[in-house]
Amino acid sequence: MQKDFLMQDTADDRVAFDTGTLKYNEAGLIPAIAQDAETGEVLMMAWMNADSITQTLSSGRVTYWSRSRQSFWAKGETSGNVQELTGLRIDCDRDCLLLQVRQTGPACHTGRRSCFYTDLRDGVEVITSAPVATGS
Amino acid sequence: MQKDFLMQDTADDRVAFDTGTLKYNEAGLIPAIAQDAETGEVLMMAWMNADSITQTLSSGRVTYWSRSRQSFWAKGETSGNVQELTGLRIDCDRDCLLLQVRQTGPACHTGRRSCFYTDLRDGVEVITSAPVATGS
Repeated sequence: MQKDFLMQDTADDRVAFDTGTLKYNEAGLIPAIAQDAETGEVLMMAWMNADSITQTLSSGRVTYWSRSRQSFWAKGETSGNVQELTGLRIDCDRDCLLLQVRQTGPACHTGRRSCFYTDLRDGVEVITSAPVATGS
Repeated sequence: MQKDFLMQDTADDRVAFDTGTLKYNEAGLIPAIAQDAETGEVLMMAWMNADSITQTLSSGRVTYWSRSRQSFWAKGETSGNVQELTGLRIDCDRDCLLLQVRQTGPACHTGRRSCFYTDLRDGVEVITSAPVATGS
């Protein structure tokens, strides 16, 4: 079906998205990578369940599932550092999501733009960015 | 320690990388995102264990851990579509890696450059790219 769809981009070939068709782990979660839609910078990776995907799509603001708190985690709900969803991609195995986002402020809880601020250089860890905002 | 390191970027503050300091899941695995080092395109997400990280760092070519085969998966070993490692970043929680790679050919087993070729648009899945090479 996907092959036909690729060949003929007609309305008949379109596949309506259904969160039930994704592959979740044993805890019902799927990894979601958040990428800055403008710069391409990878900001963070977190987890979603089917309901948090539905919430994200309906609200336009990224909502993860917090494994530590076992609850929805509407990104920026308390900090204001929201992620506005501009695109959602599904990988070939349907077991990972790529979220394209417009990030307000830092994505990282340390106040840095990206969570991936530790770079490995010649066997040594180097912190490459400073907090852009101090959390309260 | 990391705070001091950020403040004073001196040799004394440097942290030698140790795979044992990362956080792995119950299967001993950590997710690794591969990003095209030049374009910023997110190519794929797969899993690594401590030994595959060590192999990747020593060889300079990305080696994942295949959950389905339960074996090392030296990317491109059979297809030739290798991933040369140009950078490795660790996230704030130390439970996710970002690999910056120079990708030869397609990263996806479908022959597409990226595994994230299915885009969600207005509730419909749209395939955004065609295979760049046909696998044998």
